[in-house]
Amino acid sequence: MAKSLESQIPQQKAFGWAARDSSGILSPIHFSRRENGVEDVSVKIMYCGVCHSDLKFCRNDWGITRYPLVPGHEIVGTVTKVGNNVKKFKVGDRVSVGVMAGSCMSCEYCNQGLENYCPRIIFTYNSIDIDGTITSGGYADSIVANQHFVFHFPDGLPSDAGAPLLCAGITVYSPMKYYGMTEPGKHLGVAGLGGLGHLAVKIAKAFGLRVTVISSSPGKESEAISKLGADAFIVSSDSEKMKGATGTMDYIIDTVSAVHPLAPLLSLLKANGKLITLGLPNRPLELPVFPLVLRRRLVGGSNIGSVKETEEMLEFCAKHNITADVEVIRIDEINKAMDRLAKSDVKYRFVIDMESSSSQP
Amino acid sequence: MAKSLESQIPQQKAFGWAARDSSGILSPIHFSRRENGVEDVSVKIMYCGVCHSDLKFCRNDWGITRYPLVPGHEIVGTVTKVGNNVKKFKVGDRVSVGVMAGSCMSCEYCNQGLENYCPRIIFTYNSIDIDGTITSGGYADSIVANQHFVFHFPDGLPSDAGAPLLCAGITVYSPMKYYGMTEPGKHLGVAGLGGLGHLAVKIAKAFGLRVTVISSSPGKESEAISKLGADAFIVSSDSEKMKGATGTMDYIIDTVSAVHPLAPLLSLLKANGKLITLGLPNRPLELPVFPLVLRRRLVGGSNIGSVKETEEMLEFCAKHNITADVEVIRIDEINKAMDRLAKSDVKYRFVIDMESSSSQP
Repeated sequence: MAKSLESQIPQQKAFGWAARDSSGILSPIHFSRRENGVEDVSVKIMYCGVCHSDLKFCRNDWGITRYPLVPGHEIVGTVTKVGNNVKKFKVGDRVSVGVMAGSCMSCEYCNQGLENYCPRIIFTYNSIDIDGTITSGGYADSIVANQHFVFHFPDGLPSDAGAPLLCAGITVYSPMKYYGMTEPGKHLGVAGLGGLGHLAVKIAKAFGLRVTVISSSPGKESEAISKLGADAFIVSSDSEKMKGATGTMDYIIDTVSAVHPLAPLLSLLKANGKLITLGLPNRPLELPVFPLVLRRRLVGGSNIGSVKETEEMLEFCAKHNITADVEVIRIDEINKAMDRLAKSDVKYRFVIDMESSSSQP
Repeated sequence: MAKSLESQIPQQKAFGWAARDSSGILSPIHFSRRENGVEDVSVKIMYCGVCHSDLKFCRNDWGITRYPLVPGHEIVGTVTKVGNNVKKFKVGDRVSVGVMAGSCMSCEYCNQGLENYCPRIIFTYNSIDIDGTITSGGYADSIVANQHFVFHFPDGLPSDAGAPLLCAGITVYSPMKYYGMTEPGKHLGVAGLGGLGHLAVKIAKAFGLRVTVISSSPGKESEAISKLGADAFIVSSDSEKMKGATGTMDYIIDTVSAVHPLAPLLSLLKANGKLITLGLPNRPLELPVFPLVLRRRLVGGSNIGSVKETEEMLEFCAKHNITADVEVIRIDEINKAMDRLAKSDVKYRFVIDMESSSSQP
């Protein structure tokens, strides 16, 4: 029997950088992407942000990494091919791909447009794809993605500083919308001033919130206020300032990914206050119950955002000129960057320039 | 200077039972109530429920008890006197008093009708009252209460089995309303089947929810279903049944007051599921972050309810014939009852018949 036209298309060759073991050290890799199916968009990658979870996956901190691992889920690039059913994109369009590569499209969550909570979600890397292969991310020259999970990248956004919006941006935007944390004039605490935290400050200011950064690093104070636009800054170890801020905040976005005490943050909240935790520490956090019950506070989680929310977030950021503060690197600088990221030594996101990096060895 | 008319009224003598030390043993006490002020209602107490927090206060489990302590905050009685500014009540009315005796009436919470989150809330017992005295609760023959914190007791409700609504009832009703847990057909888990839990089942059924009880006591299954109206019952140690229920619940009301793991309960929730914790364990609970973040679940607290919600709850319970299942006792049986309560040996609430108990020694 003759092969179908589609299956005759040879798999697309790709080049990227992969971690091979829990050392997390990345090195060049030649691999293939799946054929561009009827619903697919092939993208030549221009930039890819370096998310803290890339580091965790590279080093197998969560114990679930499938090596070799090509990380990266903050992708901006140019369409090079579209499938027959793709009407929304054409060759040459500037597009972006985030954390999700697929979902079942038929469960109760997908039916509500909450692909990010689909139990069969396929992540952009380290997931088992529909064809049984392991997905590979954006530390590569190209990607093939289902059109539902590809986003037009608004004209106003730069490709490099805009790339981190695809994970860091949507991860802070989505809970602000879902948990009702966008009322102008309300007081938001942002705990942790890294990739997520610095975008939380910018997005919150665009919503009209009053923003206080809570950070363990005194050195970040002046920049948080003068450059990022925060209204106030508290060093988390300054017990006097922490005490002075007791019960003053309506919401807190907690981006700290290490194990840390919740009690000091909870005490900053008013009654009915909401603490949204976005980091993924390996061990459970201690939850004191009295401050939760007596002041009707809540601790909620949130995981990236839906397709619809991501589109909305990109438009919002374009409208308000919100981009990440980035250090653009070449891919051959990635191992040094990962070491610096592990020490929180970056303001505030590394972004890999894949085009100028992709000269293959 | 002559004393004002009001201050000339002699303080009202009262008789009750008090704990004197952390043994928690209660014994008779003669004490006085404040004069009936212009905003006050004096109440001859008929019944008072025995809340689990009465036990904790008697034994100083939270380290904040002021002895001698007259506990009790699930009070039903008859008005014997009203102040000049009291228009809502008249002598002879059947009324009830709950957990709150006062609040500042001027803060941002009081202004929103959220007296239960006023930072200067005065509790019915063990609080410092406006006159500097320590408040005494309903294990007594009478009480003097500010009219704002006195509720008409609906005709349809029996005084004995209705008394526990004033704390146990409102404590489960308020979070169901606030956190949006009343959508008919949704699936609620009730963890712990004691005073709060059994009322949560009844109130949830009246809202049209599907209710599953999660309990450590297999012996409670048949009664939970046949008598209280639960749809299903899971013994929390039955790992197979717990696993089978993974991701099936929209909400959980967690009434367990001992330190207990949250992870097994969180796993029962769907994405976007809400776990409301109402118990007050001394030590923090372990909060696993992955199940919170990856499924956008939340853990929220809630503390009793506002005046408005309490009025609404009483009407709701009267309309739906919801009362507590009670064991009525005499006050001289209270120490035995407390020992049984400490062992969860009560279905589901002790209520003290104060009228038949108040023969003074």
